[in-house]
Amino acid sequence: MASSFGKVFSITSWGESHGPAVGVVLDGCPAGLELSEADIQADLDKRRVGQSEVTSPRNESDRVQILSGVFNGLTMGTPISMLVWNQDQDSSKYEDIKDKFRPGHADYSYLAKYGVRDHRGGGRSSARETVGRVAAGAVARKLLAREGVKIVGYTAELAGLIAQRVDFDEINRNIVRCPDPEVAPLMVAAVLKAKEENDSLGGIAEIRAVGVPPGLGEPVFDKLDADIAKAMISIGATKGIEFGSGFAMARMQGSQSNDPFVNKGGKVGTVENKAGGILGGISTGEDIVVRLAVKPTSSIAREQNTINTSGEATKIEVKGRHDPTIIVRLVPVAEAMMALVLADHLLRQRLARVTFE
Amino acid sequence: MASSFGKVFSITSWGESHGPAVGVVLDGCPAGLELSEADIQADLDKRRVGQSEVTSPRNESDRVQILSGVFNGLTMGTPISMLVWNQDQDSSKYEDIKDKFRPGHADYSYLAKYGVRDHRGGGRSSARETVGRVAAGAVARKLLAREGVKIVGYTAELAGLIAQRVDFDEINRNIVRCPDPEVAPLMVAAVLKAKEENDSLGGIAEIRAVGVPPGLGEPVFDKLDADIAKAMISIGATKGIEFGSGFAMARMQGSQSNDPFVNKGGKVGTVENKAGGILGGISTGEDIVVRLAVKPTSSIAREQNTINTSGEATKIEVKGRHDPTIIVRLVPVAEAMMALVLADHLLRQRLARVTFE
Amino acid sequence: MASSFGKVFSITSWGESHGPAVGVVLDGCPAGLELSEADIQADLDKRRVGQSEVTSPRNESDRVQILSGVFNGLTMGTPISMLVWNQDQDSSKYEDIKDKFRPGHADYSYLAKYGVRDHRGGGRSSARETVGRVAAGAVARKLLAREGVKIVGYTAELAGLIAQRVDFDEINRNIVRCPDPEVAPLMVAAVLKAKEENDSLGGIAEIRAVGVPPGLGEPVFDKLDADIAKAMISIGATKGIEFGSGFAMARMQGSQSNDPFVNKGGKVGTVENKAGGILGGISTGEDIVVRLAVKPTSSIAREQNTINTSGEATKIEVKGRHDPTIIVRLVPVAEAMMALVLADHLLRQRLARVTFE
Amino acid sequence: MASSFGKVFSITSWGESHGPAVGVVLDGCPAGLELSEADIQADLDKRRVGQSEVTSPRNESDRVQILSGVFNGLTMGTPISMLVWNQDQDSSKYEDIKDKFRPGHADYSYLAKYGVRDHRGGGRSSARETVGRVAAGAVARKLLAREGVKIVGYTAELAGLIAQRVDFDEINRNIVRCPDPEVAPLMVAAVLKAKEENDSLGGIAEIRAVGVPPGLGEPVFDKLDADIAKAMISIGATKGIEFGSGFAMARMQGSQSNDPFVNKGGKVGTVENKAGGILGGISTGEDIVVRLAVKPTSSIAREQNTINTSGEATKIEVKGRHDPTIIVRLVPVAEAMMALVLADHLLRQRLARVTFE
Repeated sequence: MASSFGKVFSITSWGESHGPAVGVVLDGCPAGLELSEADIQADLDKRRVGQSEVTSPRNESDRVQILSGVFNGLTMGTPISMLVWNQDQDSSKYEDIKDKFRPGHADYSYLAKYGVRDHRGGGRSSARETVGRVAAGAVARKLLAREGVKIVGYTAELAGLIAQRVDFDEINRNIVRCPDPEVAPLMVAAVLKAKEENDSLGGIAEIRAVGVPPGLGEPVFDKLDADIAKAMISIGATKGIEFGSGFAMARMQGSQSNDPFVNKGGKVGTVENKAGGILGGISTGEDIVVRLAVKPTSSIAREQNTINTSGEATKIEVKGRHDPTIIVRLVPVAEAMMALVLADHLLRQRLARVTFE
Repeated sequence: MASSFGKVFSITSWGESHGPAVGVVLDGCPAGLELSEADIQADLDKRRVGQSEVTSPRNESDRVQILSGVFNGLTMGTPISMLVWNQDQDSSKYEDIKDKFRPGHADYSYLAKYGVRDHRGGGRSSARETVGRVAAGAVARKLLAREGVKIVGYTAELAGLIAQRVDFDEINRNIVRCPDPEVAPLMVAAVLKAKEENDSLGGIAEIRAVGVPPGLGEPVFDKLDADIAKAMISIGATKGIEFGSGFAMARMQGSQSNDPFVNKGGKVGTVENKAGGILGGISTGEDIVVRLAVKPTSSIAREQNTINTSGEATKIEVKGRHDPTIIVRLVPVAEAMMALVLADHLLRQRLARVTFE
Repeated sequence: MASSFGKVFSITSWGESHGPAVGVVLDGCPAGLELSEADIQADLDKRRVGQSEVTSPRNESDRVQILSGVFNGLTMGTPISMLVWNQDQDSSKYEDIKDKFRPGHADYSYLAKYGVRDHRGGGRSSARETVGRVAAGAVARKLLAREGVKIVGYTAELAGLIAQRVDFDEINRNIVRCPDPEVAPLMVAAVLKAKEENDSLGGIAEIRAVGVPPGLGEPVFDKLDADIAKAMISIGATKGIEFGSGFAMARMQGSQSNDPFVNKGGKVGTVENKAGGILGGISTGEDIVVRLAVKPTSSIAREQNTINTSGEATKIEVKGRHDPTIIVRLVPVAEAMMALVLADHLLRQRLARVTFE
Repeated sequence: MASSFGKVFSITSWGESHGPAVGVVLDGCPAGLELSEADIQADLDKRRVGQSEVTSPRNESDRVQILSGVFNGLTMGTPISMLVWNQDQDSSKYEDIKDKFRPGHADYSYLAKYGVRDHRGGGRSSARETVGRVAAGAVARKLLAREGVKIVGYTAELAGLIAQRVDFDEINRNIVRCPDPEVAPLMVAAVLKAKEENDSLGGIAEIRAVGVPPGLGEPVFDKLDADIAKAMISIGATKGIEFGSGFAMARMQGSQSNDPFVNKGGKVGTVENKAGGILGGISTGEDIVVRLAVKPTSSIAREQNTINTSGEATKIEVKGRHDPTIIVRLVPVAEAMMALVLADHLLRQRLARVTFE
């Protein structure tokens, strides 16, 4: 059950970095949704390696196959199984570090848990696992689009450089997914410099959901923000999350942090959106806004200190092929997770009242 | 299912602020654990209202009753039902605001969701709901204590005042749960000032788990940090969470954020603990460290702008009895949630290998 | 999780025979349903002990209290906690058999599982646990009634006496819940004879759901019949279940067992209803019909052979207060379980299609 | 979630009869289990079509591929994804009946549920879906074998012919899986006669689990028998289930149905095994014995009455390639389901006590 997520729109992810394939089964997608492989491929291409000089050069075309659940271009209400074959899984580079624990990686913790470990590129702990998330997220997006919900993610901060404005149209025009055309080239330069230095960078990703109807979220544990937090922190490199004003709210007074309700053309709204679109764990109708702390890629081509499985001090150099920053490819994964949570709650909202409207 | 949390050590919470009682059913507690009402009462007393001048004056003794699952002082492996009667639920003060939406509260979002709403003190969205969490958390703590796991929470920051050192013994010596004896009185003064001004304060709570064995956490979705994130963000006032170095890691380079493994007297450890005790979603054996952004109490005794259920602009003054800061009473709730997550994963770890050791 | 049932309309049962109380938390009941304690009491009274000379003389008034989830006579979408205090729990009679295993009972298997055991009246394995099921089932029935679904159970066979016709109005006119007025007095006589002989009787209960819309049930595992089977077999005394023609179908040929579809006044129906209202795990719109094999009450006031916890052969005489047949009080429990399954699937059907109609 | 089964050893099934493939993801298999494709293939071959003259002539080699979760011949604790390509999915024969409802099939109920339907060989409702169950069941069996648990299924009754004795060695020596060498040829003759008459036969399958330790099963809803009932009834053709003496127990008196406990060489046992190895929903250590009512194959090559999607009366002749009796191929599926339930509960038993032994 640990590889399943979502209560009614629910996915089960499987696959390892250097196994034959990775994939996902999506159970609970309603019948009658138009769906094709092309719908999914578009999102997969955004998380693909080798898309630019700021991502890993591993060569994976990541062509998705839909194996079930779709007939004549429509979902059938049955599980949708999607698969991507691994193509460029060269595991030879991992051979000489198979007894060493890579700093920042899950090598030791997996071994401590399972007693065995797949050392080839991290196995299950690899970011390659997120292929299935993105594939399923694409289906969630199609469902959400029917209700006018749109999800947009971008790099809000990288190497200390902060996007000063958010232009949705700009995001896909640059290779770092920065929404600010002036800051984007600076970010690119910073990444290339880190790459040259065999180092890596972290950053802050911001994910917004626009057009979310009020009423989504299920107190007291499956609150919308609680589920989003779980979804986002389950992504490998994410070390923190905040909603709306987030940590800044900890330094406010109630008279500042409270956001008065106002009538916005017949709809209930708030003056600002300090709450990030969620109050009491339920969407308010304002944009949902979350910010994610993304750590630098742990794999760097530098010699580092560590120990081996016998507990002896040693040096390690992680060869393989790595992203100088993971944030560029994390953004589409985070968008997918947001979509999955919202699709789940959009459906669950159908259960909230005796009379469904 | 939205009021249930935990997969194998699992709780179901119920109750509203001004209903007859609040409670919890804990299912999945192993048989043979010594347990008495006194064990639970100690934790409930820490979250109780009226414990000092920095908490709400509502008068609730919060005496817990164990109604099932315990016989002759031992758990029986059957569900443990615990109940606390509401005593001081004066709902008259909410009568004249029952058609207005309190800023920062869930009044509107609950109504948007369910079409109906219990206006008396927030109903289900009240912090009173956390009584059940703390009661169940106390049982989790007893289970964890058998394995040498201890959970400690405290106020790391309040009103911009930051605890400069962490002395576990100090925490319960002052009424703001500050681990720094020099900063504590300043924090108290700040809260009393806010109270006098009919305002409220937020802060940052830090929760540590000490003695956690390596191997807890279940990739890829039930990662230990993902489950902790959900648990913590499900607490009403929490607007953000970070693990270890958290958001600061977003500004590091990989050569800085990576934490080399070292041999600590025969055990695998890391030089520092930037990861906050979790790598790849699995505990490493280092302390688990999380920080929570806690917003100021939304209920303040000042006139605020808002609208009513007809969409008309109006003024609101929230009378009731409120905490000038919620962080003092949130700390034991956050400790309980940490305990619940760890107990669940401690048990789940028994399932990880063919041979249980 | 083992004491929870239902995926979206979900109950958590708690309590032991001789503890302070028994109860249930119902999570997932939609908001806006009219509900009062009287609605629930009516069903509880049908399963109550002491209702006639064919049931146990234990004296329990079984007054239900609703502790949460209902405000102003309406469900609020929040968990509904219901409790019944145990009153007449005289456990002294169990003192001298506390080290012996009662034949037909769960004494040994509970001990084998948990290492500890509540010997007082079976503890958690007692039929008293079903109080919570019936209380929650009453809520399910109210929800189902809105959609025109009605559930009727009765004693189809007892002591080899078979009801020859099914008159719904007759069922509650006799104390054995027999739908045939001519057979009912024969059944009563048989039970009284068994009681006099310090023996007990089994029988076959039949449960029908009328007015169930087509489309309920979720292949491939949460099929409607699969969920009903689990629900019914989870009732203590049930040793078998069959749907429609059931075991008789094993002796037919396909040309006999197939039931042609016909147009019944604009609705799709079948000529007979051999399938018991379910095909492929989904309701067809025909009545759902199940039959349950109910074993004789295991507690009989006769000396029986057994062993004790040391493995020594011994004699046992089960005193306590017992039902000469359990079927009379099992029928309302089985009705409740049917209601719970149908309510769950009625709601889940809202999730089956992109467009909800 | 409707295509997932099992709480900790849990499978998610996917695939349709005439889609590209069918498969399963098994999540929760402990790390360190030896596993190869050959282990799984052996069980798949038992449920395969075309294995003899009493099964469907559809030509499927059913070669399984393990796509994840196994490395160096050992399970890794990560999800095990298994896939079988559909090869001989000729759907042309279904073209002219795509608007008609096949009697005994799920055509109408699927359409009523989802609003759309895959008419090709039943789509998801086809028995082809059980490939994934058998593949996952093979893994469960390997896990159970480590603990000495063995599962054996057979045809206890067919065409009114009843196996008079149970010789485990005989079962795989004849093509109808009959455990009685004298009755087996009679059963074969009966099937061939039905086949010649374009008709089909039902029967009774018996499944036994030998060597099950006492203590498995989780009251009050996840009782071992309740979970087995759900598992078995979720198999397409199963219309009833009974445990131990089952329906016969409904006609006994308590003094007959109670089974005295005895000391069997230091172990607790019962004189007979009327309870079928389960008391109070927990295994007793005696063999688990269930009997399943299996209906005749619904697809028969005869003209039958039915209606079409417009509600008009019509005739239908189901061509395709069908099994004259489904029981032969159902037995391995039922064995797999028994294995899945037992593996799940074997693991869950590790959670039952504070100290795991």
